This record gives sequence, structure tokens and C-alpha cells, in this order.
Amino acid sequence: MTREELIKVCKAARLTLPRLISAGARVKMLEAIADAIAAKKDEILAANAVDIPLARQSGISEVMIDRLRLTPERLDDIAGAVREVAALPDPLTPVSETTRPNGLRIVRQRVPFGVIAMIYESRPNVTVDAAAICLMSGNAVILRGGREAFNSNMALVGVISEAIAPFGTRDAVNLITDTDRESVDALLSLRGYVDLLIPRGGAGLIRKVVDNAKVPVIETGTGNCHVYVHSSADLDMAQKIIINAKTSRPSVCNAAETLLCDRDIAPVFLPAAARALRECGVELRVCPESMKYIPDATPATEEDYYTEFLDHVLAVKVVSDVYEAVGHINKYGTMHSEAIVAGDAGAAEIFMSEVDASSVYHNASTRFTDGGVFGMGAEIGISTQKLHVRGPFALEGLTTMQYRVYGYGQVR
Amino acid sequence: MTREELIKVCKAARLTLPRLISAGARVKMLEAIADAIAAKKDEILAANAVDIPLARQSGISEVMIDRLRLTPERLDDIAGAVREVAALPDPLTPVSETTRPNGLRIVRQRVPFGVIAMIYESRPNVTVDAAAICLMSGNAVILRGGREAFNSNMALVGVISEAIAPFGTRDAVNLITDTDRESVDALLSLRGYVDLLIPRGGAGLIRKVVDNAKVPVIETGTGNCHVYVHSSADLDMAQKIIINAKTSRPSVCNAAETLLCDRDIAPVFLPAAARALRECGVELRVCPESMKYIPDATPATEEDYYTEFLDHVLAVKVVSDVYEAVGHINKYGTMHSEAIVAGDAGAAEIFMSEVDASSVYHNASTRFTDGGVFGMGAEIGISTQKLHVRGPFALEGLTTMQYRVYGYGQVR
Repeated sequence: MTREELIKVCKAARLTLPRLISAGARVKMLEAIADAIAAKKDEILAANAVDIPLARQSGISEVMIDRLRLTPERLDDIAGAVREVAALPDPLTPVSETTRPNGLRIVRQRVPFGVIAMIYESRPNVTVDAAAICLMSGNAVILRGGREAFNSNMALVGVISEAIAPFGTRDAVNLITDTDRESVDALLSLRGYVDLLIPRGGAGLIRKVVDNAKVPVIETGTGNCHVYVHSSADLDMAQKIIINAKTSRPSVCNAAETLLCDRDIAPVFLPAAARALRECGVELRVCPESMKYIPDATPATEEDYYTEFLDHVLAVKVVSDVYEAVGHINKYGTMHSEAIVAGDAGAAEIFMSEVDASSVYHNASTRFTDGGVFGMGAEIGISTQKLHVRGPFALEGLTTMQYRVYGYGQVR
Repeated sequence: MTREELIKVCKAARLTLPRLISAGARVKMLEAIADAIAAKKDEILAANAVDIPLARQSGISEVMIDRLRLTPERLDDIAGAVREVAALPDPLTPVSETTRPNGLRIVRQRVPFGVIAMIYESRPNVTVDAAAICLMSGNAVILRGGREAFNSNMALVGVISEAIAPFGTRDAVNLITDTDRESVDALLSLRGYVDLLIPRGGAGLIRKVVDNAKVPVIETGTGNCHVYVHSSADLDMAQKIIINAKTSRPSVCNAAETLLCDRDIAPVFLPAAARALRECGVELRVCPESMKYIPDATPATEEDYYTEFLDHVLAVKVVSDVYEAVGHINKYGTMHSEAIVAGDAGAAEIFMSEVDASSVYHNASTRFTDGGVFGMGAEIGISTQKLHVRGPFALEGLTTMQYRVYGYGQVR
């Protein structure tokens, strides 16, 4: 779509905002969406059946095909997730109210951003989640999903638009109806039309958006995460945590990419951990000192320590103490999720307060960084920036504040 | 300073962050700063005495000279403001704590941004306020004040650095020691070194920063504010409010720049308001319909409605109703401060919830948008963006969140 076409879409989307103020109306819209998805399964599955073989022809991996695939059961889950969002507390409430000495009553009120744009992967469930979370937080949304999900997304957004049309908010949920780069470039430039842009996906997309956007952005997702084993660690626990953090789902952003190990325990811990990791199919890329304990490993390059492998590959490095571990993480990490395994509470507190990441763990796996796990229900993404929101975010992260001041003629 | 020199400054600043974790230490640093300013008045005043004649030679206005001038009393006030910040509640506290069903204890903790850079006007008091607020929120800061305050800022930052040196945090407060544009350009590019950049000043600077920054930015200050007089308004109150909003301090960002008036009351309200405004020396630029009631005014151009005059100039426009007023404000405004004068509570609520501004007023002047007035003590600026903070912001706005998760071996 051209810039001019997108501006038209944004303007129409903005006009729906007053109809998203009422919490009751928002809940009813989400319920209508869930009902419509359940009622129109055949239509949606037929569109998905067009996407799958095309995606396979284009040569994407089976993991990606699986993320793209819809089934009747998955559509039930998707509709159920919408109902769960509808059942969450209204995010658009006052957060404080004070009356000043001059009689002014000042209400600090949570309000929507306005028009949110989202660029994301070829996962049709994200289309529905994003629409539901944006609407529930009073925002209109412009969706730009991955090209492989094009027909599925057209069907889903068609169903959603029709479901909310009776509320006068048909234009509140929009799909960019092409897969050109031009649309993404145009989105980045729509200052004054797009209030917030959320890119999800690979490091390349995120970097491009952050470098070029003139609109406000929340960066998500890139996770170069570490597990640091302190000399005071319970070594069985440490091994269990690194195995889980690396191998339970290597393709996700909260998986670990580097193991840091204190020098004092390296001779004991590293040989055993290496054996267990290799049994899980993990390739190890190690520092010169680790090589003494894992003699047949590949030497790690500087680049390896910067890399989010998203695969069965793990970098390994021996460090002197918690300060060197913190320094390494703050240099090479992406401020996503970082773990220390330690018996010593003092060392753990240094790690927790000095590591500059959205989520820090003492004696637990990095894999827990997730909206559902953190108790916020569905999430829109995991922010790796410090501005506005950090870590998993959902309804509250899609709101901003407004001061509403009530007087009776006060002047200054 | 070159990019490389600035990177060195940023790295040294970051190394001080662990010493800013303790609330007790931060309070003591601020007290030391206040004491040092009181003790070194002569030194600071001597530097200021160099700046004043140079500034006058460069032809800046007397209003600006007055903002630049320091006196013994003003230094007392500046030191007093530092003590007030030191007495505020510690912003770096946990905001929530939950234990999840799997036993993970999740603490959501307020943490500093890290290294904050600030570009601001030739006002030496801002140098000290900014240093105090950044330190109190656990941040290191790089200051780039206006060129006219160069010697005053050198003296003040010298005094501050010396005062905090015993805490090992000398490098936590830094002044860019030149007035070249090169330094500003370099600051904008320091992704990974500067965690947050706050520009204060004219619309030109803000626009340049927002368009070019690769680092996270909080925009401040530009205020194209409106007063809207609804047909149900108490007209005496309305006149008092527009006179105050326009004339009490026309050069500030929360002053009104446009008066909107409902058609029904225009024949009564506009002639009287115009007379009173002109008695205060205000030039009126009016729409064709207003011209019927203010016959000898200047016609307003489209550009006038977009302009923050910061002077004794006011644009005037007749509108049909609250919806047209909201539409005008959302089109021409800068999302700063907007007021409705109305007896009708329904019209007021439509205005308050649909106007897209940081601060909205019912029956009060726009001039109240201010950190002190809103009860947050000193402010670092007034954010006109929606991301992160909106409206006046200070300690809390200079923090971000971190999830700290405590376990005993949990894996996923």
C-alpha cells in the first residue's frame, strides 16, 4: 500500500476511537469476535489451506509451517484466548486522584495510545491476539502479518471486521492487504497517524524499524540470554537449569545462548554439564579456559558471544566472579532474560541489581519470561527496550496516561 | 566533543551506576551538592558574571538574560530545590510482588534508565535540577546546556562533581564542554551508550532530535494549547480563564494560543473577550465568522492555527459544538494542555475523554500543567509524547521496570 492509502486507513481507524471508550462495548466486541471465529471455522480453515502449500513451496521450515497451520482445535483455542482477554480487568481506569490545595481535582487516567501498528511473523493466532488486546485497551490497530499467512489473515480480519461492524468500529481492525516492503517503509514514516509501532520477528526487522522509524516504537523479542553458574551454586540445580534454558525450546527468545561459569567450579561443573548438553544434541563453542575441561569443543569467536543462535548451539565462558559475569552480560546481552544459579544470596543480589535486563532470575530458568507465566494473561510481545514497558507486556503496555483536571474557574 | 570522546564519558558514567543503587547514598550525595552550592556561591557567581555580558552582546532578549542570571538568593533557591528532591520518597522501590503457582516469586522493581543525556536552554538552575533529579533516580547524566550559560554551567558542574567525588561518583554528572552542534549530533547516535535523551527547548531542536535520534527520546515542551468556550459556559469564568491562559506568562509552553468559541454564544462572548484581551495587549487573529464580532481584527491563516506564538498573539475560531472543537484541537494541537469551559458536564466529559493531550482541563486554566502544581515536586520537563511518560515528569519518569524472579531450581 502507498503512504497515501495507509494514511486513509489510519484516519478511518482514528475515527473509531470514541466508540472504544466504553468498557462494556469493548467486552461485547471481543465476545462477538470469539463467537464469529467459532462460527466461521470452515471459511478460515479454507483460507489457511491455501497458505500452507504455498508456504511449503517457498521452502520455509516445518517449525514455521506448524506455526502457520490452523485446525478446528486451534481455532477454538484462539477464540478462547479472545474470551480470556475480554474477561481481564478494564485497563482504562483512573490510577490516582488528588485534590490540590487550590481546589483542582487531578485525575491521572489510563488512556489508549490511539492507532497501533504491528508488524509480525506468519502466525495467524497473533493476528487475533493482537486485534483482541488492542481493542480491549481501546486502540485501533493496523496489522501487517508475514506473507506466508496472507490468506489466513485476510479471512481472520474479514471475520473480525464483520463481527465488530455492528458496533460502528469496522475500521478499528485493519490488515495491510499486500506483502510489499513499501508498506512497512510507509508505516515507519507515519508520524501523527500511527501512535505506536510494534515490530515482532527477527533481529533484522527490529533493527530496520528502530533505525528508520519516525513513529514511536516498542522493540520486542531479540534474546541473547545467559545462565551464570556462581561458585556457590547447587551444581545439580545449575545443570538442570542450563539444560532447560538451552534445550526445552531453542527457537524462542527466552532460551539461553551462553553459559558463564565461575573459575572455582569449572573443573567439576563444565565436564558434567557438557556431557549432559551434548546428550541433548547441543553443540558447544567454548573459551580457551573452558577448552581444558571440554577438550573436543569448538573455540568460541567474539561474534559467537553476540549471537542469538536460536538453535542447539551454546557458547561457554569461564569468569572470575559475579562482577565479570555481570560485565559480560551487560556487554553482549540484549537486555532480555538473565539467570544466576547461586547459593550465596549476596552474589545473587549483586547480579539481580546490576544486570541490565528486563527479567533477571535467581535459581530459575530464563524460559519463564512470558506474559502468561508472569500472570498478565495474553501478551503482545516482550519488550527489550527500557522506554515505556520492559519485558512481557499486554493491555497495560498499550495504554498511556492523561491528566484530567477538574476546576471551578481556577487561574494561575 | 567527538563521538569517541562522548563514548568515553558515557562509559565512565555507566561505571558509577552500582554506587547509585543505595538510597541512603543518593540522599547524601544530594545533600552534599546543596551544601557545596551554598559554600561556593562566589565562585559560581563569578562565572555567571562572565556569561551575562557575553549573552547581552550576542543580542538575546532581556527575558532570556533574566533566566540566565544568578544571584545569591537564586543560588539559595537552587540549593533548596536540591534538598527538596533529596526529601522525596525513593523512586527505586518494588511496585508489586507475586508468587506464582510454581513457587516463583516475581518482584517488579523500579530501576534507573542508566545514562541519561539532556539538551536544554541557557538556564543554570536547570543544570542543578537535572543533576539532582537524575542522581536521585539512580541515573548518571550528561548535560548539554545552552551556550550562553557555558561558564555558569562549568562552575556548577565543577562544584557538583567535587561534592560527589567522595562517594566515588564523580563521573555520574558530566557537562559537554563545548557548544558545537557536533556534540548534539553525536549524542543522537550513541545507541547502547545513552539510555535516554531528553531535549528541552524550541520546536526546532525537538523536531531535529526526534527525526534523527537513534537513542530513546522523551520529547518535551512544545505547547500549542487551546481554550474552548462551550455554549453552556459561565462567560465571566471563561473570560477570566482565557485572559489568564494567554497573558499571565505568554512565553511558556502551557500558555493558550487559540480560543475556540461555540457559535451560539459567539455574539455575546467574543466582543467582550476581545476587548479584555486587547486591554492586555493581545493581538487577535480570527476566522471569518469571528470577524463579524471582532471587526477590526487580523484574519487568521491556516498556519496561525498551527503556531505556538509564545507571545501576545491569539488565534480565534468559532465552532459548532464540542465535536468540532475536539476535531480542531486534535488536528492543530501538540497534545500538551487543553481546556474546556462549560457548565454542561456531558460536554465536558466528551472533551476530556476525546481530546488527545497530556493534560485536559474542565473550568480551569491551561497554565496549571506543571510538576510542582501536580504535586510531584521538581520536574524534568513536560512530555508531549505518549510513550513512557506524558505531561509533567520527574523522578518516576526517569525510571524503568525490571522483573526480578526468585526460584529454587524451577525449570519450564
